[in-house]
Amino acid sequence: MRNLRRIIPGALVFVLGGIGGAVFAADPSAKELAAKIADQQTIMDTVWVMLTAFLVFWMQAGFAYVEGGLTRAKNTNNIMMKNLMDFCVGSLAYWVIGFGLMFGAGNAFVGRSGFFLIEKTADTFASLSWATVPLYAKFMFQLVFAATAATIVSGAMAERTKFNAYLIYSAVISAFIYPVVGHWIWGGGWLANLGFWDFAGSTVVHSTGAWMALIGAWFLGPRIGKFRKDGKANAIPGHNLPMAALGVFILWLGWFGFNPGSTMAANASIAHISTTTNLAAAIGAITAMVTAWILFKKPDVSMTLNGVLAGLVAITAPCAFVSPASSIVIGGAAGILVVLAVVFFDKIHLDDPVGAVSVHGICGSFGTLCLGLFAQDKFQPGTTGNGLFFGGGSSLLLHQAIGVISVFGFVAVCGVILFGLLRATVGLRVTADEEIEGLDIGEHGMSAYPDFEMAEKNTGAGLVPEVHAKSRVTV
Amino acid sequence: MRNLRRIIPGALVFVLGGIGGAVFAADPSAKELAAKIADQQTIMDTVWVMLTAFLVFWMQAGFAYVEGGLTRAKNTNNIMMKNLMDFCVGSLAYWVIGFGLMFGAGNAFVGRSGFFLIEKTADTFASLSWATVPLYAKFMFQLVFAATAATIVSGAMAERTKFNAYLIYSAVISAFIYPVVGHWIWGGGWLANLGFWDFAGSTVVHSTGAWMALIGAWFLGPRIGKFRKDGKANAIPGHNLPMAALGVFILWLGWFGFNPGSTMAANASIAHISTTTNLAAAIGAITAMVTAWILFKKPDVSMTLNGVLAGLVAITAPCAFVSPASSIVIGGAAGILVVLAVVFFDKIHLDDPVGAVSVHGICGSFGTLCLGLFAQDKFQPGTTGNGLFFGGGSSLLLHQAIGVISVFGFVAVCGVILFGLLRATVGLRVTADEEIEGLDIGEHGMSAYPDFEMAEKNTGAGLVPEVHAKSRVTV
Amino acid sequence: MRNLRRIIPGALVFVLGGIGGAVFAADPSAKELAAKIADQQTIMDTVWVMLTAFLVFWMQAGFAYVEGGLTRAKNTNNIMMKNLMDFCVGSLAYWVIGFGLMFGAGNAFVGRSGFFLIEKTADTFASLSWATVPLYAKFMFQLVFAATAATIVSGAMAERTKFNAYLIYSAVISAFIYPVVGHWIWGGGWLANLGFWDFAGSTVVHSTGAWMALIGAWFLGPRIGKFRKDGKANAIPGHNLPMAALGVFILWLGWFGFNPGSTMAANASIAHISTTTNLAAAIGAITAMVTAWILFKKPDVSMTLNGVLAGLVAITAPCAFVSPASSIVIGGAAGILVVLAVVFFDKIHLDDPVGAVSVHGICGSFGTLCLGLFAQDKFQPGTTGNGLFFGGGSSLLLHQAIGVISVFGFVAVCGVILFGLLRATVGLRVTADEEIEGLDIGEHGMSAYPDFEMAEKNTGAGLVPEVHAKSRVTV
Repeated sequence: MRNLRRIIPGALVFVLGGIGGAVFAADPSAKELAAKIADQQTIMDTVWVMLTAFLVFWMQAGFAYVEGGLTRAKNTNNIMMKNLMDFCVGSLAYWVIGFGLMFGAGNAFVGRSGFFLIEKTADTFASLSWATVPLYAKFMFQLVFAATAATIVSGAMAERTKFNAYLIYSAVISAFIYPVVGHWIWGGGWLANLGFWDFAGSTVVHSTGAWMALIGAWFLGPRIGKFRKDGKANAIPGHNLPMAALGVFILWLGWFGFNPGSTMAANASIAHISTTTNLAAAIGAITAMVTAWILFKKPDVSMTLNGVLAGLVAITAPCAFVSPASSIVIGGAAGILVVLAVVFFDKIHLDDPVGAVSVHGICGSFGTLCLGLFAQDKFQPGTTGNGLFFGGGSSLLLHQAIGVISVFGFVAVCGVILFGLLRATVGLRVTADEEIEGLDIGEHGMSAYPDFEMAEKNTGAGLVPEVHAKSRVTV
Repeated sequence: MRNLRRIIPGALVFVLGGIGGAVFAADPSAKELAAKIADQQTIMDTVWVMLTAFLVFWMQAGFAYVEGGLTRAKNTNNIMMKNLMDFCVGSLAYWVIGFGLMFGAGNAFVGRSGFFLIEKTADTFASLSWATVPLYAKFMFQLVFAATAATIVSGAMAERTKFNAYLIYSAVISAFIYPVVGHWIWGGGWLANLGFWDFAGSTVVHSTGAWMALIGAWFLGPRIGKFRKDGKANAIPGHNLPMAALGVFILWLGWFGFNPGSTMAANASIAHISTTTNLAAAIGAITAMVTAWILFKKPDVSMTLNGVLAGLVAITAPCAFVSPASSIVIGGAAGILVVLAVVFFDKIHLDDPVGAVSVHGICGSFGTLCLGLFAQDKFQPGTTGNGLFFGGGSSLLLHQAIGVISVFGFVAVCGVILFGLLRATVGLRVTADEEIEGLDIGEHGMSAYPDFEMAEKNTGAGLVPEVHAKSRVTV
Repeated sequence: MRNLRRIIPGALVFVLGGIGGAVFAADPSAKELAAKIADQQTIMDTVWVMLTAFLVFWMQAGFAYVEGGLTRAKNTNNIMMKNLMDFCVGSLAYWVIGFGLMFGAGNAFVGRSGFFLIEKTADTFASLSWATVPLYAKFMFQLVFAATAATIVSGAMAERTKFNAYLIYSAVISAFIYPVVGHWIWGGGWLANLGFWDFAGSTVVHSTGAWMALIGAWFLGPRIGKFRKDGKANAIPGHNLPMAALGVFILWLGWFGFNPGSTMAANASIAHISTTTNLAAAIGAITAMVTAWILFKKPDVSMTLNGVLAGLVAITAPCAFVSPASSIVIGGAAGILVVLAVVFFDKIHLDDPVGAVSVHGICGSFGTLCLGLFAQDKFQPGTTGNGLFFGGGSSLLLHQAIGVISVFGFVAVCGVILFGLLRATVGLRVTADEEIEGLDIGEHGMSAYPDFEMAEKNTGAGLVPEVHAKSRVTV
């Protein structure tokens, strides 16, 4: 905090090609003025991109709290550590490798330059040259997106995954899997060229995380006691619902960085994007609550919370291209869909403690397809064109479907390889004894709530493991 | 996240009348440059309005945590659901009806156009034409204010209100009651024309919420066990004070959106407004703590937390028009007032579990009147003029008093009608059995903290209901 | 929220010397245009400074939650109150006295004007004239920094300090101690003139707080039961680890205001600063976790959380002057250092319940010295020059060392005087009975978690005080 301002102009000349303290000669030419105006636009863009990146970073706390709140008290430390460390490991991995694979110059499938953020030529990051903000701003904004994809997996694999295996997984998704998908869609790859659109990442971020989560949960098998011998699912209630509720509020706030920030520039469309984002979340909560009320006779808290997230995930791809009314249809449908999906995964004995696959995978894919139905050219002229419901025909929807399926296929294969290797080497799942006692003690040697008396039934002793932990896949 | 920038200018031409990527012809004219500068101001305003709107949205989490922390563990899920759903229901209701009633063209009492955000003519939202940001930015900013008014009521009616009744109430306040008050003061209605001033909503938002809360709590009657046969009040301690403390920190942060954001434009006064806001909050905590220390012999936590809110609520109306020194007087007085008001409402057996009426109603009205005392013309020349203490005479104070009383009268009548109808139809209060067991199980079928052993006295079994729940009004 | 915009230009002419609604004459001159562009830069700077100030304010909640989570449930109310009230008291004290001592015109050791924010002459705040934002923006940004220094002390003195003594301490550090150090380094004092650099306050803020914490903890003596008769330390586990984890997420978010905001201007370097800040935090968590894993056989949660903070504190001084690669070295070393420091202070029986001295003092000094090693002139040409590792010789490192030592000396002397006086007058430590029962009841008359059953061992009854509380200093 010392007089950088008077000194910075030099630095800025280098970085931005002009301006700084806006000190002019006595009689500036129109050209000089124009250059300064352009520089101010870049600075304003940078302010916007950084502040929205900070909001997206904040979503890490939201994911930690949603997952922690919806699971048992004996695993809370482990969940905090996973959600913290996937961001830490991911920050390094994405800086070293991921950003280069995603945005570096390469071919249609992967970038092959720009590792360690090094710009060898002016074209190294040509795929991001449309944004005028400094490279570091682009990196920070993309990093927090990569971390979002990574952390989604944690919830579906909660309460039974070995901590060291999770650390390795975190590095791999941030360094390789997410960046490859990202390259296809945002890095100038084959899906971008095909005409697939995903404004803020329903597929790039959320589905990628969710399909990894699906494979991970499948390889792990269900938690001890989750499914009874008669095939029915036991409810394993979350230990701290207000924690989960705070997590959802945090995520909602963070999404105001996620979607409007994806402009990567300060412009008028951020207001429109915020509105569609908010309406989809609000209606998602309402329809999920009503669906749960009908199915379970009560307005269930965790279903309603997931309804907010369902609406947010679904509107993420189309938020910039659809009307507020369309966003209500999309978010409302997602709220219903997420409840049905949770019930479905319980039926097929896929144990996803927080519903991550339903929220991010099902609703993410749904939202991506909705872009093909509800997009209207007038919102961002010259981008998506009109979707099926607005007279644009089915080609956009087809491209969207190809994207959704391709990403599923690629991520699923990666997931099988990665989790297969992990299971064969360091091991993927903790012992049954550790799982019953809780991962807080087993993995970290410390209870999350040592001053509180815990209810017998939840400390493990009272939980009769009718079904033993057994991975249902044997690759 | 794909190259919207290069494409957006067209869209922006449409929306903003110029600019975008700041690409100029080789030799731009002064007129072209001036147009681009004006556009940049608009974009900067939009960035400011959206970011402060996000901060105000974040206050929803703060209200949820203050209310949850200051009440019992057996009702926490219900409180999270109420605070979440009033925002969700309100988002829809305000989009469909509320915003049009508040800012649409109409008469001095109510707007009669602009529903569903549709601008039929250029004059539809003339009352907001002074702000140059896009309509969606105006909507998002106003929406989070409407939601604040709605959620205030939740605290006063906590621990005994039927969830379905609360959902209906949420829709009605967001669609009708708040927008009408808002139209009078911010929508070009009769109080605006009279010369009543309320910069960020001590009356528009906080008192409106609080007077509804007062009527609601009155119609509900006190919680079982709150008042003893001898007339003394039992303290029913909050179950999680750090939760309440976090709520207050969240609200304080959110208020930096609430007050400075109410400029609805990026300009130099945001720094002044932030300073008065912060000083009032700080001194409010101090005087409330000292008052409680004197009255109760201890520096009470919940009173101190309410002192922060008291200072914030009181400075909300005058924040842009008064000096930092005046803000200290206003906030300091509010901190004393809130403690005395809480004691008073206990005395008259009005059971307000979190002190919402004292904080938002008493201190909101007090702050609105203070504007008539402490306003100084120099801060925003040509607006309020000087208040009574700065040589401006008593007319401003008189206008402020008229506003305070009118809003109380209108909201109280609306409250009596709404809560009367609700009580006569769906019912307002849960059964005594459900209240004793807790609304988490009764309304939502799920405990908030299933892994924790709860203390006997707070689970209901240990609480002897000396005074039975009885509504003290029979309309 | 009423039409300030059309009215404000007059106010802004006064404050900023031009602009407002960007309404131009039909054919503006180049001079007029240039003036408006300069005004827009100032407004953009103001937006940035205010928003980052809000983020730094938010760190108050983070400190409260880290300290609360890492200590016992019986003291949580007291900790919330301390962390709230030091900000409230500090806000007043810094407005009245502190800001003037820090930035007011004076000599090389202290400012002697500008109290109550009154600018008697144009030169009153000449030390901050390099920043063009309004005075109130400067004040708000500096205030939240002062409050950060103050609140650091709370953690090291947790669970045994009298509340009234803490209030007095808060006023003194915010009014006198911190501002004097700040004047030396940021207010144009002797360390600034010497060529000592501390971009965002590793020394100014963090070490100042930490050395006060060190003296405070030393004067207090360890908590009852912390050290056994054989000299070994008992672990006293924190009562709510997810609370501490949320605190760390909050602090990380807040640091994106703390470091990039310290530009006090919107410019391109905020992206670079955010990147170095983030990488240092991420690697700090990793190295702390690994170090703890090696030393204690488990990836310890609280050590990992402190690793994040260690990285953040260490990079605070050099964040603007070093490369991302250097930030990884600095943050990584800090993560190791903090674990070793915590072990060391346990060894010498300095009871610092949250590790505040290790995090803010050791890592703050370390980071300040690292600036002398890793600084590169190219990032902010004409400021620090190159550090030792980049060919700049040892003079910068020497200046950094002089600063670190001087601040330690000054603050330690202040701490001895202040805490000595407090102990001799109001008393510094609560009674042993109160400490065993918990400060929530003793100081505030209210338990933090009355609805929960507490585990015997933590309520005091089960804790055998083998070592009695005894201050190890007798001044």
